[in-house]
Amino acid sequence: MTPELKQVKEETISTEQVIKKAVEVICGKWRMVIIHLLRDKTLRYGDIKRSVPGISEKVLVHELKQLVELGMVDKESFNEVPPRVEYRLNDKGRTILPVIDLLREVGQAFM
Amino acid sequence: MTPELKQVKEETISTEQVIKKAVEVICGKWRMVIIHLLRDKTLRYGDIKRSVPGISEKVLVHELKQLVELGMVDKESFNEVPPRVEYRLNDKGRTILPVIDLLREVGQAFM
Repeated sequence: MTPELKQVKEETISTEQVIKKAVEVICGKWRMVIIHLLRDKTLRYGDIKRSVPGISEKVLVHELKQLVELGMVDKESFNEVPPRVEYRLNDKGRTILPVIDLLREVGQAFM
Repeated sequence: MTPELKQVKEETISTEQVIKKAVEVICGKWRMVIIHLLRDKTLRYGDIKRSVPGISEKVLVHELKQLVELGMVDKESFNEVPPRVEYRLNDKGRTILPVIDLLREVGQAFM
């Protein structure tokens, strides 16, 4: 292996881990769609469900749980009857918004 | 459904398709890593293989084929002994580079 290729390799390995983490965070059929939906407003579970018609109850619950666990979305439960649960994109989740905007541009080129 | 929510829904559906396409294009464990590797240079198959140590032969061949089929990477075969095959990121593939740069920033926040 030439020194140049070795350098390429080392640089790729460290960057590789960061890129892989980012891919893990943003990838998934619905994740970006849900984050985009929460971009401007706090939404109740039912609002999200109705706004993403193709998603199953099970997958949506799982996705929202993961977004909360990743620290991107805050969930607030209100002690009301019927119970009210709201989801809000927080500052960490907002770091993803420029990625979504770019993906929208990029996606157009591949449609 | 309120008119406001209906509008949210309609806007989400059309954007949803573009975002989903983009996710399809950029997602996958190795895709961004390979594109990043090809960012500055034309590489031979063996160079790529050595620079992405964790990838299997089968997966790498499949990934490169998909990148060529998506129109992001150009493959050139030279009639030499031993055969030489080179891969180069083309203009369409380059549209992904700003996404990778953003992902590197975003990924840091999640490490």
